[in-house]
Amino acid sequence: MKKLVSFGELLLRLSTPDYLRFSQASSFDAVYGGSEANVLISAANFGKPCEFVSVLPDTDLGRRAARELQINQVGVSNIQFTGKKLGLYFLEKGAINRGSKVIYDREHSAFANMDPESLDWDEIFKDCDWFHWSGITPAVSENAAKACKIAVDKAHERGITISGDLNFRGNLWQYEVDRKQVMSDLVNKTQVLLAGHYACKQFFGLEAEIGSGKDLSSKLKDQFPELKTVAITNREEINASHNKWSAQLFSEGEAYESVQYDIYPVVDRVGTGDSFMGALIYGIQQFDLQKALDFAVAASCLKHSISGDVNRVTLEEVLKLVDGDRTGRINR
Amino acid sequence: MKKLVSFGELLLRLSTPDYLRFSQASSFDAVYGGSEANVLISAANFGKPCEFVSVLPDTDLGRRAARELQINQVGVSNIQFTGKKLGLYFLEKGAINRGSKVIYDREHSAFANMDPESLDWDEIFKDCDWFHWSGITPAVSENAAKACKIAVDKAHERGITISGDLNFRGNLWQYEVDRKQVMSDLVNKTQVLLAGHYACKQFFGLEAEIGSGKDLSSKLKDQFPELKTVAITNREEINASHNKWSAQLFSEGEAYESVQYDIYPVVDRVGTGDSFMGALIYGIQQFDLQKALDFAVAASCLKHSISGDVNRVTLEEVLKLVDGDRTGRINR
Amino acid sequence: MKKLVSFGELLLRLSTPDYLRFSQASSFDAVYGGSEANVLISAANFGKPCEFVSVLPDTDLGRRAARELQINQVGVSNIQFTGKKLGLYFLEKGAINRGSKVIYDREHSAFANMDPESLDWDEIFKDCDWFHWSGITPAVSENAAKACKIAVDKAHERGITISGDLNFRGNLWQYEVDRKQVMSDLVNKTQVLLAGHYACKQFFGLEAEIGSGKDLSSKLKDQFPELKTVAITNREEINASHNKWSAQLFSEGEAYESVQYDIYPVVDRVGTGDSFMGALIYGIQQFDLQKALDFAVAASCLKHSISGDVNRVTLEEVLKLVDGDRTGRINR
Amino acid sequence: MKKLVSFGELLLRLSTPDYLRFSQASSFDAVYGGSEANVLISAANFGKPCEFVSVLPDTDLGRRAARELQINQVGVSNIQFTGKKLGLYFLEKGAINRGSKVIYDREHSAFANMDPESLDWDEIFKDCDWFHWSGITPAVSENAAKACKIAVDKAHERGITISGDLNFRGNLWQYEVDRKQVMSDLVNKTQVLLAGHYACKQFFGLEAEIGSGKDLSSKLKDQFPELKTVAITNREEINASHNKWSAQLFSEGEAYESVQYDIYPVVDRVGTGDSFMGALIYGIQQFDLQKALDFAVAASCLKHSISGDVNRVTLEEVLKLVDGDRTGRINR
Amino acid sequence: MKKLVSFGELLLRLSTPDYLRFSQASSFDAVYGGSEANVLISAANFGKPCEFVSVLPDTDLGRRAARELQINQVGVSNIQFTGKKLGLYFLEKGAINRGSKVIYDREHSAFANMDPESLDWDEIFKDCDWFHWSGITPAVSENAAKACKIAVDKAHERGITISGDLNFRGNLWQYEVDRKQVMSDLVNKTQVLLAGHYACKQFFGLEAEIGSGKDLSSKLKDQFPELKTVAITNREEINASHNKWSAQLFSEGEAYESVQYDIYPVVDRVGTGDSFMGALIYGIQQFDLQKALDFAVAASCLKHSISGDVNRVTLEEVLKLVDGDRTGRINR
Amino acid sequence: MKKLVSFGELLLRLSTPDYLRFSQASSFDAVYGGSEANVLISAANFGKPCEFVSVLPDTDLGRRAARELQINQVGVSNIQFTGKKLGLYFLEKGAINRGSKVIYDREHSAFANMDPESLDWDEIFKDCDWFHWSGITPAVSENAAKACKIAVDKAHERGITISGDLNFRGNLWQYEVDRKQVMSDLVNKTQVLLAGHYACKQFFGLEAEIGSGKDLSSKLKDQFPELKTVAITNREEINASHNKWSAQLFSEGEAYESVQYDIYPVVDRVGTGDSFMGALIYGIQQFDLQKALDFAVAASCLKHSISGDVNRVTLEEVLKLVDGDRTGRINR
Repeated sequence: MKKLVSFGELLLRLSTPDYLRFSQASSFDAVYGGSEANVLISAANFGKPCEFVSVLPDTDLGRRAARELQINQVGVSNIQFTGKKLGLYFLEKGAINRGSKVIYDREHSAFANMDPESLDWDEIFKDCDWFHWSGITPAVSENAAKACKIAVDKAHERGITISGDLNFRGNLWQYEVDRKQVMSDLVNKTQVLLAGHYACKQFFGLEAEIGSGKDLSSKLKDQFPELKTVAITNREEINASHNKWSAQLFSEGEAYESVQYDIYPVVDRVGTGDSFMGALIYGIQQFDLQKALDFAVAASCLKHSISGDVNRVTLEEVLKLVDGDRTGRINR
Repeated sequence: MKKLVSFGELLLRLSTPDYLRFSQASSFDAVYGGSEANVLISAANFGKPCEFVSVLPDTDLGRRAARELQINQVGVSNIQFTGKKLGLYFLEKGAINRGSKVIYDREHSAFANMDPESLDWDEIFKDCDWFHWSGITPAVSENAAKACKIAVDKAHERGITISGDLNFRGNLWQYEVDRKQVMSDLVNKTQVLLAGHYACKQFFGLEAEIGSGKDLSSKLKDQFPELKTVAITNREEINASHNKWSAQLFSEGEAYESVQYDIYPVVDRVGTGDSFMGALIYGIQQFDLQKALDFAVAASCLKHSISGDVNRVTLEEVLKLVDGDRTGRINR
Repeated sequence: MKKLVSFGELLLRLSTPDYLRFSQASSFDAVYGGSEANVLISAANFGKPCEFVSVLPDTDLGRRAARELQINQVGVSNIQFTGKKLGLYFLEKGAINRGSKVIYDREHSAFANMDPESLDWDEIFKDCDWFHWSGITPAVSENAAKACKIAVDKAHERGITISGDLNFRGNLWQYEVDRKQVMSDLVNKTQVLLAGHYACKQFFGLEAEIGSGKDLSSKLKDQFPELKTVAITNREEINASHNKWSAQLFSEGEAYESVQYDIYPVVDRVGTGDSFMGALIYGIQQFDLQKALDFAVAASCLKHSISGDVNRVTLEEVLKLVDGDRTGRINR
Repeated sequence: MKKLVSFGELLLRLSTPDYLRFSQASSFDAVYGGSEANVLISAANFGKPCEFVSVLPDTDLGRRAARELQINQVGVSNIQFTGKKLGLYFLEKGAINRGSKVIYDREHSAFANMDPESLDWDEIFKDCDWFHWSGITPAVSENAAKACKIAVDKAHERGITISGDLNFRGNLWQYEVDRKQVMSDLVNKTQVLLAGHYACKQFFGLEAEIGSGKDLSSKLKDQFPELKTVAITNREEINASHNKWSAQLFSEGEAYESVQYDIYPVVDRVGTGDSFMGALIYGIQQFDLQKALDFAVAASCLKHSISGDVNRVTLEEVLKLVDGDRTGRINR
Repeated sequence: MKKLVSFGELLLRLSTPDYLRFSQASSFDAVYGGSEANVLISAANFGKPCEFVSVLPDTDLGRRAARELQINQVGVSNIQFTGKKLGLYFLEKGAINRGSKVIYDREHSAFANMDPESLDWDEIFKDCDWFHWSGITPAVSENAAKACKIAVDKAHERGITISGDLNFRGNLWQYEVDRKQVMSDLVNKTQVLLAGHYACKQFFGLEAEIGSGKDLSSKLKDQFPELKTVAITNREEINASHNKWSAQLFSEGEAYESVQYDIYPVVDRVGTGDSFMGALIYGIQQFDLQKALDFAVAASCLKHSISGDVNRVTLEEVLKLVDGDRTGRINR
Repeated sequence: MKKLVSFGELLLRLSTPDYLRFSQASSFDAVYGGSEANVLISAANFGKPCEFVSVLPDTDLGRRAARELQINQVGVSNIQFTGKKLGLYFLEKGAINRGSKVIYDREHSAFANMDPESLDWDEIFKDCDWFHWSGITPAVSENAAKACKIAVDKAHERGITISGDLNFRGNLWQYEVDRKQVMSDLVNKTQVLLAGHYACKQFFGLEAEIGSGKDLSSKLKDQFPELKTVAITNREEINASHNKWSAQLFSEGEAYESVQYDIYPVVDRVGTGDSFMGALIYGIQQFDLQKALDFAVAASCLKHSISGDVNRVTLEEVLKLVDGDRTGRINR
C-alpha cells in the first residue's frame, strides 16, 4: 500500500482525572494528539502506511510527542525539531449535563512559528497516494496556513487524492485573515470532505436546509466542483455522557446512510471525528462506499470507549461491529 | 449584596474510590463538607457574599477544613477553633442497585461539644439579609440544638429572612430530646422551607396525600403560619446510578413546577439537596419564583456531575442549562 | 450448618485500570479469583461454612492468593502449596460496544500440574453436605480433570449433594481429551446444574429450542437422570456497559422465573455467574425454590456493581433487593 | 506450640501519601493496626499461634479491621462486635528534619466504652502460654484499664508468662487516674518488660543514669521483683529519615547487647517497637537470649522498610539478617 | 502587623511523579507557585499579613492559581484577571546524580503581556511596611521589568523597606535588554538582598573571592550603598538527593553564620530559597539578626521535606528546629 | 554507523509499587525489559543503530512489548510473533536491609518454545558490526540455547565483533544441560566479556584471587584465547537502598579503573549491568578504553535513578557526569 500523509500540529493534552473540575485537580493525565495525527493513527490501526509531517519543539516533551506516533506505527522522519514551546491544551471532562471544557495554550508554539517554506514536499510525497488536511491547521497561525496551502497545492500537482475535515474551532483563528479565502483554497483542490452545517456556514456562508445532509452536500459540490465525496457525521447529544452517533456519505449522486449507535457512558469523545476520517480513508480504498461508511462509523463508535485522543482498535474489532455484534461480550 | 449566614458542622468525608466497598478500600478520598456549608458554597458560586459560623477542632485537620470554605469564597472569621475531634463520616459509593452507605463518626466532636452561648450573633448578623439552618444541626447534640435555636431567634428579631431544610437523618439524634418541639421552634420563625413527606411525618406527624407536594405544603403552612415558601425536591431513584430530578415550589397560593432532568451515570449525589437550597436562596433574591426554581433545579442537576459534597458551577453554566441546553457539548 | 466444598484453581487476575486497552496500560490492578472459589465466597457471604480445595505454588504469590479466601471466611486447610507457577489471566475491561478481552496464562501452573491422587477426600468431606464443581477445572489439564472426577465420585459415594456449572471456555481445553465423556462423568452424578444452550451444544451436542430453557432442561434431564434442578441465567447484552439479567429454574416439573434487572453502567461482570451459583446453593438450603432463584438473581445483580471476581454483599443487602427495593438510596 | 494472647484496641490509621502535610492531602492511605495487634502479627509471622482479644464496632469498618488479623494468621474468635465508633488516628509522615505527626481520634470508641467484665478469660487462656499487654490499653479509658488488669490477673493465676511494653503516650490518658498505681498493678505481675528511660520516669518517677540501660533495668527489678527480663530499644534519631537502631536485654544478672543497624531512608517506623516485642517473645521461646535479642532487633530493623503498622517478614528473612547479610541483594 | 507585599508571576508547575523522566510520564502533578508568591506564603505561615500583586489569565486555571494564595492566607485583591495564557513550567524531578530539569512555558503569558502602568501602587502600599522583588520578574518581559521598577520606586518613595532576591535564571531574559541597568535600578533602592556569587557575576560583573561571602557582600555594598543586609545561602550539592544547607548574613559590619543541615533524601528543593527569604523577612522584624538567620535556615531546611513550591510549616515547627531538635521524632 | 544486534527474551515486569511486599500489593506497575533488549536500548540512547531479534507471543501483550523497543529507537523487524505466553516476572522492590525479590514466570513462553532454526541470520546481520549475547538466553530453554549458539557462530563467521555478559541466574537453567559446554561455546567466539567472580566459578569452575579482577581476567583469557577485553563491575551493597558502584576493564595487558559512585537512595537497580554493557559497546567504538569505561560506569550510575528495566539518558547527560559534575543541580 502507498502512504497516507498529513500535516498538522501535535499537542500535549492535559486532562483532569475522574471528571474533576479544573479547580479540583491536583494532577493532569497526559496524552498526545491532534486532529491530523489522530486521523493517521486511525488509518494506521488497519495497516495503512502513514507519515506525519509537523514541527515540534526541540525539547524532551517535543521528542516524547513524536514517539506517540511511532508507538502507533506512523512515520516521523519528516518532523522538524526546532523552537521551544509545545502546543498544549487543558481538558476538563464533563459528565451528564455538564459539558467538557477546553483551554487552549498553543499560540506561539513551535508549530505556529514554523517556516512555511521549510518542508520538502517532493520528498515527503514519494510513494504517497492520499493527503489529508484539517481546518485546524490554518486556524493556528498564518505560517501554518501558508504551509498547509503549499502542501495541498503540491499534492494536487502530483495527482494525490486529497481529503479534508473542515473542523471549525471558534477559539482559534487568532490572527488577521480572510478565512473564507484560506479555506476555499484548500477545499477547491479536495476530493473527499468531512463537513458539517455549522462549519459550512461559518467558513463559506453556505446555508443548507436544516438537518439535510443531502442539501448541504449539493451546495458544497456546487461551490467546489472538484469535491467528489462529502461525509457528514451526526452526533445526537442527549447529554455529555450519552450520545447517539451515525453518519452519511454523498458521492456521485448517491446517498449512503449508516446505522446509529447508542453510546453511553462516553469514555472519551475527543478525536472521534478524526477516527471516523482515518477509517473512512482506509475504507474508501478497501471497500465499497456503503461499507466504507459503515466501517468509519463503527470505528469511531468504538473510539468513544477509548481514553485519549487517538483510536486504538484492530481491523477485526471494527469488522465485528460492522457485522452487527454490539454485545460487548467477553472473549474468553 | 448583603451576606447569607449559616451555622452548622463541617465534616471530613472519607470515601472509598472507584465504587469499592468498605472491605476493599486501601485508601479513602478526602473532601470537606456539611449541609450548611454546602448551601453557602452553592450560593457563593453565583456571587452571594456568605459567612459560615461553626466550631472546629484546634488541629491541622480543623484548620484544613476551614480552608475549604475560603477556597470557595465563604467567610470564616466566625469559626471557633477549640477541642480535638473533627466530625467525620465514611462514605461507600454505591452503583447500579447497590446504594451508598454512610458511617457517621461525629459524636463528641468539637462542634457537638460546643458552648451554645459562645457565639456573638449581633456581630455575625451585621450586614446580613438571610440566615439558613438545617435539621442536621439540632440532630448533632443538645448544645448544637440550643445554639441553632439562639441563632434563629436572633435572626428573627433582626428581621433577617430565614430558611431551613428539614434534612431528616435517622442515624443522628442520638440524645434525649423532644424532636418535634426542637424542630417546631425553628420552623415557626422560618419563611422558606425545603421539606419532604418523610421528614414531615417523622418530625411533625404530619401526613399529606401521597406524592402531593401541594397538600404537604398546605399542611405545613397551616401548622407554621410564618412559612411563605415551601420547596420540595423530587428524586426518582431508578437505581443508585440513575436518578430523575425535579422540584416544586409553593408560595403565596401559587404552585411552580420545574422540568425533570434524567441523570446518569451519577458522579456524586451527596450535597445535591444543599446545592439546590443555595441556588434557591440566590434565585429568590435575583429572579422571579419560577426562574428561581428552574435555577435551583439546574444547579443541583449539575451537582450530580461533580465529585465531593459541594457544588462548583458558575452562574453562566447554570443559566445555560436553565435555557435548555442539555447537550453537554465541548466548548472549544 | 455443614460445609460447602469446592475444588478448582485460584488465579491472579491482572486487569487494566480505567477501561484502558492492553497497549495503554502502565499498571495492572490485581485481584484473586476463580470460578469455584468465587462460588464459595458468594455462599460464605451469607454464612455458609465453606472449604476450598486447590493446589497453589509455594511462593509469596501463591500464599497471597490463599489469603483472599481467608479474608472472605473460606477455609483453606486443604490447599496444597507446591510448584512455582501461579495461574493468571490478564483482563482488558471493555466499555460501550467494545467487549472485554481475556488473555489466559495458566498452562503449566501448579494447579494444572497437580497430582490427582494427592488429595484426601475422606478427610475433606467430613462435615460436608454439598460439593460444587465447574467445567473450568477439567478444561485446565488432564490431571485436574482426573482429580475433579475423583472428587465427584467420592462425594457421590457419601451422598453429598453435588452441583456443577458447565462453564464452557473455548480458549481452555488445550489437551487431547474426549470432552463429552469427561463432562458426562461429572454431570451423571450431579443433582443441581447451571447450564446454557451454547455449553450444552458444545459439550453434549444437545440442541434445544432456541431460547427455551424448559426444553433445554428437559433434554438435560433425559440425558442425565440424576439431575433434579437445572438453572439457566439469561444475560441480554445491550452492550458491554449495559446488560439485562434474569434467570430460570427447572425442578421436579416446575418452572420458576425471576424478575429481570436492568444493569448499567456495569462495574465488573466477571464472576457474576459464580455469585449466582453460590447464592443459589445457599438459597436452596434456606428458602423455597422461587425465593432461592430470586435470591440468586438479586445477589448476582449486585455483583455487577462490585470490582473484582468475587461478590461482597450481605444477606440483608440481597434480601432488600429481593424485596423490590432497587432505588440504591443512601442509608444515612 | 501454645498460643500467645494479647488484648488491646485495633485502629484504622489514615496516613497522608508521599510525605504530604495534612493540609495538602486529598486522600489518606488506610491500614489497620494497634500496638498489641502488631505484636501478635509480628510473632505470627514466625509461626507462633496467636489470638487477639478486643472490642470492635459492629460496622463494616469494624469487621474489616478484624480481617487484617485473619489475613495475618491471628485468631479473632474472641473479638466482640458492639458499638459504633472505630478508634482511628491520622498520621502525617515526616521526612528529613520534619517529624511525623499523629492526631488521635479514639476517645469514645467501641473499645474505650467496652464492658470490662464481658470477656471470658478462662476460655481465652485455654492452650495459651504467654500473655502480652501494652501501656496504651490502660491509657485509652478507665474501662480498658480495668479489663487489662483483669486479664493480667487471670493470666498470672494460671501461670502464663506475662510480658508488657510500657509504651508511654502523652496524648492519651485523658481520664482521671492514678497512672502509677494502674501501671504498677500490671508490671507487678510481669516477667518480661520492654521499657525506656522516659516512660519509667513518667510512670514510676524512676530515674536511672542517663543512657544506662543496666541501671534502669536494676531499678525496675528492685521495684518490681517478679520482673525477670528487661528489654530496652535504642533509637538514635539522626533525623526522621535516618535512624540507628539497636537494643539491649538484661536478664538474671546478664546483659546482652545487639549490633546496631543504620536505617535510611525510613519507609515506615510506626510499629517497629511492636515488631521487636513480637519477635522477642518468639525468640525467647526458641533461642538463647543473645540470639533472641539479635532476632528481635533484626526483625524490627526490617520493619522500617515495610509500609503500615505491622511487620511482614519471614523467619528466613530475619535469620538471614541475623547472620549478617545486610546487602539487600536481589534474589533471582 | 503591617503588610508584606510582593509582585510577580504565579505559575502552574507540572511535575512528573515518582522521579519519572519526561519521556516516561503519563500524568503530571499540578501545583501553583512562583518565587515572589513563595516568599509571601513562607512569611504568611508565621502570621505576617501578606498581599500578592500579579496578573493572571481570566480562565478557570488563572482563578485556581489565585486560590492557592488564599488557601495560604495571602491577600489576592490586587490580582488582575485578563488575557488567556497562564505561565507554566514542566519539572522532571531528578535523583542521585541526575539533576532535575525544567522546561519553561511562560513567554506571552498574561503576566508577561501585562500593562506596566495598570497597577495602583498607592492603594496597594497602604498599610504596608515591606516590599519584596525577585530577579525573575524583570527576566520575564520588558513589561514586567517596567512594572517591577515602578513598584520599587513607589515603595522607596514611601519609605517602605525593600528586599530583593537576585535569582539569576539563564533560560529567561528572552528579550533585548541591558540586564545590568535593569537590575541595578532595583538593587539601588534595596536594603536587604539575597545574593550569590554566580548571580553577581552575571548581573554586575562583580567577582568576589571564591567562596567568601564577606568579600561578596562588601563589594555589593560598595556598588549599592543603600544595601544594609546581604544574605547568602550555601547549598553543598553532594548530589540531587543529598544537599547540605546553611547561610550567612552580613549587616552593618557584622557577619552571622548559621549551622549547617544535612538534607537527604530531598523531597522537593524547588522554592527553598524563597522559603528562606520569607522567613528572613519575618525574622528580621521579630528577632535579632542571628536568630533571624537561624530561623530562615531552619524554615528552608524544612521546606526540603515538603512537596510543591511553597513552604507549609508553623512558627512552632521552625522554632523547634532552631532550638536544635533535628530528631524528627513522632509527636504522639 | 553500523548496527548492534542482540537476541534474547523480552519480558513483562510486574512490580509492586511503593516498596510494598507481594502480600500487600493491590496493583502492579508494568514495564517491559530483558537483559539483551536493555543493552540495546542503552546503546540506542547514544545514537547507535540497534536491532532486537526475539520471539514474542501473538497477543496484544506481545505486540505491546515490541513497541517498547520502537519507542526507544530499536529496530523490531526481526521479531517473530507466535505462540501465546509472554515471559514475565514479578518484582518486589526492597529497601534498607530488605532485598528485592523476583518470581520468574517464563517457562514455556513463546520465546522458550521457539524454533532455533527459524531465524534468518544472514538477513539479520546485514549492515551489522557488533553482536551481543547474554548468559540468560541459554538459561531459558534448550531451544533458546541452540538459537543463541547459531547466532554466535554466524556472527563469528562474518567477522562481527561479539560481546557477552555471563549473567548467571541460579533460578533459571531449569532443563538438563551441560552448562559449562554451552557457555564455553559462546565465550570461545567472544571478544568482549562482562564477567564476575561468582559467574566464572559457577559456569567454568574458574576461581581467581578474591577481589582481583586482574587475576580473573587473566584466567578467563587463558581459557578463552579469543577474549580481548574483560569488564568487571563492582557493586558494594551497603544495603538495598545504598550501593557504591564502579568497574574495571582489562584489555591487551592494560588495566583500567573507574571512579566510584555513591548511590542512594536507589530508585531502580534492575538493568544497571545492562545499561553498563550498552554504554561500553558504544564507548569502545567512540572513545579510548579509559573513557569508554568511565562512560559506561557513569551511564549505569544514572540508570539507578530511573524507574524500569531500561536506561533513558542522553549522551550529554552521561558526558556531564563523566566530566565530574555529580551535583544534580537543577537546570533552569
